[in-house]
Amino acid sequence: MLVLGVDPGLTRCGLGVVDGTPGRARLVDAGVVRTPSTLDTPERLLAIEAGLEAWIAAYTPEVVAIERVFAQHNLMTIVGTAQAAGVAMLVAARQGLRVAQHTPSEVKAAITGSGRADKEQVAEMVKRILQLDAPPKPADAADAVALAICHSWRGVAQARREAAVAAEKAAPQRKVRP
Amino acid sequence: MLVLGVDPGLTRCGLGVVDGTPGRARLVDAGVVRTPSTLDTPERLLAIEAGLEAWIAAYTPEVVAIERVFAQHNLMTIVGTAQAAGVAMLVAARQGLRVAQHTPSEVKAAITGSGRADKEQVAEMVKRILQLDAPPKPADAADAVALAICHSWRGVAQARREAAVAAEKAAPQRKVRP
Repeated sequence: MLVLGVDPGLTRCGLGVVDGTPGRARLVDAGVVRTPSTLDTPERLLAIEAGLEAWIAAYTPEVVAIERVFAQHNLMTIVGTAQAAGVAMLVAARQGLRVAQHTPSEVKAAITGSGRADKEQVAEMVKRILQLDAPPKPADAADAVALAICHSWRGVAQARREAAVAAEKAAPQRKVRP
Repeated sequence: MLVLGVDPGLTRCGLGVVDGTPGRARLVDAGVVRTPSTLDTPERLLAIEAGLEAWIAAYTPEVVAIERVFAQHNLMTIVGTAQAAGVAMLVAARQGLRVAQHTPSEVKAAITGSGRADKEQVAEMVKRILQLDAPPKPADAADAVALAICHSWRGVAQARREAAVAAEKAAPQRKVRP
């Protein structure tokens, strides 16, 4: 499953493309879209939109996995972070791509086994999982890669569970009439 | 000055078009883009984008005035509100329109003379300014209209001040050499 992970932010929006199946993952690309704080927010959002469109065109991911922004985030930056995440959702939806959101704890748990792992631990595990010499840089790119790994692992398992539930619902009579 | 006011929100995004000059304003249209909470956020943002594009195409405003979202907002809804505001900025910037942001207190002060006026007072003044029989409905549409009035009044005054400052800077020698 080819997943584009997005660590949303106005100043640095982390992007990471991973080809993964549960337990395995290969890094395709990682980077950031930077926008200068001297630009007005509308121009910064336009630049983020253009960057995301270019990455989606280049790698044609099946899913865009975005960090879920919620009110426990840093209140100084929550508005810009939410807006960058919104632009990512909009670009993905416009192109008919599936959008998934994962919380930081879900990402940490998927990568390290603990929802309370620190940044260094996550970066170290990302490095090992992808068999790299060093974690992707800058940190926002590494976070986006971690999101993409998380989704390719959780997403497949979740899709299987949903398919099983759907099959169960579609054919409840099988239980009583073999 | 033709201004599109936007009171951002995921469930109801208020829109109001006003043709105004300081002290005067004429209502052109007011309404809301509604998106059902049963839709995923990416689909809701797409619907808001489509609604905004339709209003801009229909009324060709010069400026899009959006309520400024900041961390003092309702934390339960701040993420969705910020994302709807971000989509409005993006749509406006993509079309080369000017974007202005005003805080609720700025709007209240411009309309009623007091930054701490309540919603009813603002609605009553909007009704009087626009010479309507009743304030625009629903409340989100009235708030968007108030934003547009605020911008057409403050914006003109602000543009004049900026022009005066720019003229002063451009020709400082005039003071010493008449």
